[in-house]
Amino acid sequence: MTKVSLTILFQLLLLVTYAQQNLVPYVHPLIGTEKMGHTFPGATVPFGSVQLSPDSDTLSYELNGKYNGDVYKYCAGYKYEDKTIVGFSHTHFSGTGHSDLGDFLIMPTQGPLQLNPGVASNPKGGYRSAFSHANEVAEAGYYKVKLDDHAILAELTASNRVGFHQYTFPKSDQSHIILDLTHGIYNYEDKVVWTFVRVVNDTLITGYRQTNGWARTRTVYFALSFSKPFKSYGQKNLDKAQVYKGFWRKFDQTKNFPDIAGKRIRMYFDFDTEEGEKVKMKMALSPVSQENALANMQAEIPHWNFEQVKAKAQADWNKELNKIQIDASETDKVNFYTSLYHSFINPTTYMDVNGQYKGLDQGVHQATGTNYTTFSLWDTYRALHPFFNLIQPSRNSDMVQSMLNHYDQSTLKMLPVWSHYANDNWCMSGYHSVSVLADAIIKGSFKGNAQKALDACVATSNHRSYEGIGEYIDRGYVPATASGTSVSNTLEYAYDDWCIAQIAKKLNRQDVYETYRKRSESWKNVYDKSIGFMRPRLADGSFKKEFDVLQTDGQGFIEGNSWNFSFFVPQNPTALIDYMGGPKKFTARLDTLFSMHLPDKFFAETEDITREGIIGGYIHGNEPAHHIAYLYNWAGQPWKTQERVRMILNMQYKPTPDGLGGNDDCGQMSAWYMFSSMGFYPVSPGSEDYSLGSPSVQRARLNLENGQTFTVEAINQGDKNVYVQKVLLNGKPLNQPIITHADILKGGKLTFYMAAKPVKK
Amino acid sequence: MTKVSLTILFQLLLLVTYAQQNLVPYVHPLIGTEKMGHTFPGATVPFGSVQLSPDSDTLSYELNGKYNGDVYKYCAGYKYEDKTIVGFSHTHFSGTGHSDLGDFLIMPTQGPLQLNPGVASNPKGGYRSAFSHANEVAEAGYYKVKLDDHAILAELTASNRVGFHQYTFPKSDQSHIILDLTHGIYNYEDKVVWTFVRVVNDTLITGYRQTNGWARTRTVYFALSFSKPFKSYGQKNLDKAQVYKGFWRKFDQTKNFPDIAGKRIRMYFDFDTEEGEKVKMKMALSPVSQENALANMQAEIPHWNFEQVKAKAQADWNKELNKIQIDASETDKVNFYTSLYHSFINPTTYMDVNGQYKGLDQGVHQATGTNYTTFSLWDTYRALHPFFNLIQPSRNSDMVQSMLNHYDQSTLKMLPVWSHYANDNWCMSGYHSVSVLADAIIKGSFKGNAQKALDACVATSNHRSYEGIGEYIDRGYVPATASGTSVSNTLEYAYDDWCIAQIAKKLNRQDVYETYRKRSESWKNVYDKSIGFMRPRLADGSFKKEFDVLQTDGQGFIEGNSWNFSFFVPQNPTALIDYMGGPKKFTARLDTLFSMHLPDKFFAETEDITREGIIGGYIHGNEPAHHIAYLYNWAGQPWKTQERVRMILNMQYKPTPDGLGGNDDCGQMSAWYMFSSMGFYPVSPGSEDYSLGSPSVQRARLNLENGQTFTVEAINQGDKNVYVQKVLLNGKPLNQPIITHADILKGGKLTFYMAAKPVKK
Repeated sequence: MTKVSLTILFQLLLLVTYAQQNLVPYVHPLIGTEKMGHTFPGATVPFGSVQLSPDSDTLSYELNGKYNGDVYKYCAGYKYEDKTIVGFSHTHFSGTGHSDLGDFLIMPTQGPLQLNPGVASNPKGGYRSAFSHANEVAEAGYYKVKLDDHAILAELTASNRVGFHQYTFPKSDQSHIILDLTHGIYNYEDKVVWTFVRVVNDTLITGYRQTNGWARTRTVYFALSFSKPFKSYGQKNLDKAQVYKGFWRKFDQTKNFPDIAGKRIRMYFDFDTEEGEKVKMKMALSPVSQENALANMQAEIPHWNFEQVKAKAQADWNKELNKIQIDASETDKVNFYTSLYHSFINPTTYMDVNGQYKGLDQGVHQATGTNYTTFSLWDTYRALHPFFNLIQPSRNSDMVQSMLNHYDQSTLKMLPVWSHYANDNWCMSGYHSVSVLADAIIKGSFKGNAQKALDACVATSNHRSYEGIGEYIDRGYVPATASGTSVSNTLEYAYDDWCIAQIAKKLNRQDVYETYRKRSESWKNVYDKSIGFMRPRLADGSFKKEFDVLQTDGQGFIEGNSWNFSFFVPQNPTALIDYMGGPKKFTARLDTLFSMHLPDKFFAETEDITREGIIGGYIHGNEPAHHIAYLYNWAGQPWKTQERVRMILNMQYKPTPDGLGGNDDCGQMSAWYMFSSMGFYPVSPGSEDYSLGSPSVQRARLNLENGQTFTVEAINQGDKNVYVQKVLLNGKPLNQPIITHADILKGGKLTFYMAAKPVKK
Repeated sequence: MTKVSLTILFQLLLLVTYAQQNLVPYVHPLIGTEKMGHTFPGATVPFGSVQLSPDSDTLSYELNGKYNGDVYKYCAGYKYEDKTIVGFSHTHFSGTGHSDLGDFLIMPTQGPLQLNPGVASNPKGGYRSAFSHANEVAEAGYYKVKLDDHAILAELTASNRVGFHQYTFPKSDQSHIILDLTHGIYNYEDKVVWTFVRVVNDTLITGYRQTNGWARTRTVYFALSFSKPFKSYGQKNLDKAQVYKGFWRKFDQTKNFPDIAGKRIRMYFDFDTEEGEKVKMKMALSPVSQENALANMQAEIPHWNFEQVKAKAQADWNKELNKIQIDASETDKVNFYTSLYHSFINPTTYMDVNGQYKGLDQGVHQATGTNYTTFSLWDTYRALHPFFNLIQPSRNSDMVQSMLNHYDQSTLKMLPVWSHYANDNWCMSGYHSVSVLADAIIKGSFKGNAQKALDACVATSNHRSYEGIGEYIDRGYVPATASGTSVSNTLEYAYDDWCIAQIAKKLNRQDVYETYRKRSESWKNVYDKSIGFMRPRLADGSFKKEFDVLQTDGQGFIEGNSWNFSFFVPQNPTALIDYMGGPKKFTARLDTLFSMHLPDKFFAETEDITREGIIGGYIHGNEPAHHIAYLYNWAGQPWKTQERVRMILNMQYKPTPDGLGGNDDCGQMSAWYMFSSMGFYPVSPGSEDYSLGSPSVQRARLNLENGQTFTVEAINQGDKNVYVQKVLLNGKPLNQPIITHADILKGGKLTFYMAAKPVKK
């Protein structure tokens, strides 16, 4: 039987074994759009290239064209608390703590033409518009808002590579659609390097824009098509100077001139509209060429039926959402399916319909499978990629292959650190791509060349000039003199090295295994037994004298203090417990972490999270602590894991715009939610084991890609019944709070018996 | 018999019918490098993509990195009068009056590393070097110079797409090769938009640079290979600010860091060298990709044998030069073959070895035949493209096809005006591409779709918003209010329209023919009979009141005053003579033109030529007058044509660096020389006719592409024997001073009988 027919058989099996539910109503894209969540409310399909969403601001625009404002706040382009919308742009990060993108802002207006976006305090002074949440609808794959200042109803939907806009205009002979090519997220230092636009005819425009933002060298090509011909068009070029004007002066380039290029360009297209007339627009993107962008449009949306595209987008979402079917409270279902939605937004497809994409070397490559980008790996190796191994293994295999392609194209011969759009921005620390590779290889998801993957891991982890790796190899730790984040680096390298060892073991590369097993114990070298905390160490071997276990900056850590990071030995909690004085002392320390009172100065310096993102001294809003609640299991106190996990699920995830206590970080926060709400969590990716917690769902049915079904059931579930009495796997009691990936892949049932009283033995 | 075998047969025929001479020694590339010639002395193959030449300055560099100086002077990058060389860059225009290019400057140095080019007055303050002409050799395909400040002998040669450098170093542990990516010609407003470089390994670097110069959006990709590994390398990034530094700070990007991008980058590569050690370097270019650049290198120069590449380049030149074999004085042979050399430099190949090129739409296209760029059409339609129709008809057919490709990719639906590297810079006036198309179609050179060519001509000539075409169509002339060059525009459009009519006639498109025949008479509408001069006309039909027939600026003309431009009716000299009062008056006017005394103010405002470029009031250094000497033929005074032509040949072309009285303009001046020195000239391209003058050669043998040979013989030739007594075509006397293109293609002999006394009948 061929592979294809096997796939078809599996799909048929899925069809007959479970009925698809309509889960789209449980997705509330506005969750996380207020405060620190940094999610966006607009329209996208799962893992889509185009993520078309309103920008309520990026930086605060000033009328004189200068920028002023909070670049961090607008990572996703939209803040729920804002009162105006600048327009709708086609690319966004979901949940990040740094920003970029915001490509190709479209804004429909009517009345006298305004080409300045204006400011929030005076929307009528520019093309932006006031709006109200009463007139706003955000669904998976669909977004709608009334633009009050222009009396225009804006609706957005998308396919993978095409944003589809539908604008319902009033009667006007001054209706406009603005394409602001100066607009971008993280734009304050004039990010746009070059813009090129061709007005091909009165319904089709193609072009590209090159930016130098978080991604250093990034070019996005587009093709834009209108459902009706514009009557006229024009541009305003805001460049201070053009190198050569000369004979270009023959032309009036501002009006109806089709050949446009420069650094700072705003375009407009004029229409006559009848009352209630819908003007539709398709904007297709490509990382490779204008030609590919047009081909993407023609392949994905060859028609003008908005409802059809919306229906397709929501069907795509439903298909993905149905991979896990839960019984839970309505609130929990909203939290769960919105988390599932957020975890399926990134990584993004980075490839044209013909398989071409632009690589790290800025050359055009042909993908095998789907090529992905947007790898926020310091965040997502923890739970998001393990979640993909569970429920999206084929996609995760392609993601791993995409990371190996990146490695092949890298002059530094390094796997990605934080990569998007054929660039690495080197954000955060470690080389956690090795964790993603290890987890996919150990769990059998990765279908590519594992030997080559191991070679890439070894090369990356031996890049001596990168963040103290050389000294780490030589001394067993990164000295404080070599890096401002010497302790967290050492801890993360040690874990990553353990991942490499797991691959080596699986591939019978004993020498590599031994090297990396040894390296994986390097965490011991930054543990100061005298104080019982991880602590910066100097080149002479002594520990840094002045040291504050509550502080992060300047203490050798990043996004987590020593209190949190001292628990970061996911690869060997047993040894850590031993180092920390045994299970009793270890448990007491965990208790202190969750209950301590933090001084105010601590909140001031903690990045990316709200005050609510912190429980005692436990920082859920940042990632280094995500495994900590599960460590009680190793100390013989699983009931405390159960209690803490349910507490975190309740306190950190709420079905409201401000419901996320920290950046969602491309789905990592959401992936934590889904694992934990189903009762298990991958404490150490690269291992087959999941550590058990306390499910908050009544039942979860995992419809696996291999055709198997794995069901989690929580008997006697309830808000107070957070403690697990016993757990049966396929009817047999578990002796320890662990199940394996293989257990799940086989299909079957995990039954938790819940009660309000802990089982303290 | 197949087409291929026919070609081989013709080549065999050529081999047996004439013996190839070594003509390379007659090419003196330094001719024209002083004063106004604007030629470059470096190494190129015929119509090569790479034109690798020393830049003695571009603008004057200041030590603080700012530019200051004369952009016009350095159109070709090198001035003979300069005492220092900044380095060797890979792209140059030959003979233009505006500038661009200068891509990828390489400079070998030794001693302490200097990354600033320094200034001419203090070469030791930067990487530039003093040199002397005594240590300089410039040949077709080869250039050599001693760099005094570094004691390095630099040698350059090239294939079509690859520049080959050979540097002989002294013993030093501080030998460097600098790659200055900020360098460029016409660079004073910071032309570089973006630069991207990958150090692939210790001998290979690839990258690209995007500029916004005379070409608005131009990207050149490169692959650079060293014959020996560098020991270290680094870069200096001169950018004022980078948008995002952030986690890039992990790296020391200045030293041995392979992943480089920014706007203003200078790189260096360090070597240890022994006394007399040759370090070789290949730099391949591509308009499409780094990958293509590398493929170009591997295809064209897969080895490190400098002498072999030089020998191949010179063999290529010899093959082209032998297409015309002349008997003449040694001086005349230098003038002739240097002219032939200069006329075979532009247009340039614009296509990779795999046939890909980047089009005007900035998309990648696949060429059929060879795709060319660098079309200085206002200049070259006159004699250069007609010369190609004679001696390079296949190449000219591909050039016409390249212009049609440009048209296909144009949003404006216009044929090129002045195009280079997938851009139109719109330089000068008219739409003279139609003349090139007409001449190639009428003479049978063009092998493509002539109907499509006609459509392109019609569309271009009806672009109403371009330089007064709309008013020209409506009124029969461009009113002075619509354009500052209303009269020259009207005259040029009228000639161009006559060209379109010729195509239409040939293709039996009677309606089009009639329209354009009528339009071609529009010159009459700007002829003011009251003064007997072409004169600006206002919208109301009246002539502009204040008017100076000697002045150019502000008088309705460009690069030529009314005195010269009033003769610009090449399509119908007979009617012009009639308008000017008959042959006698016309002859007297021509005499006055050649003998008048010009006021000094006139010289001050005349562009692009030296004082020596003017004879009386006849301006040979600019193009509008190039046909004028031949007009005596139409007035029944061929002996005056003969006298004037020989005078111009003598006065305007000298075998010295300052030997050209005006810009060579991509070979137009040179093409005039070759035609005229062989005794005939295409007064009205688009016609089959050549007008006869007075040959200065004793004999010229044209080895035609069709296998035929056409010989021009001048019996009793001598410096004083400039007058033609009689002319025989294949032994039969000619009744009028005209031969046709068909006459030449048939092969045969044209015999001039010369004497010192004119035949005045």
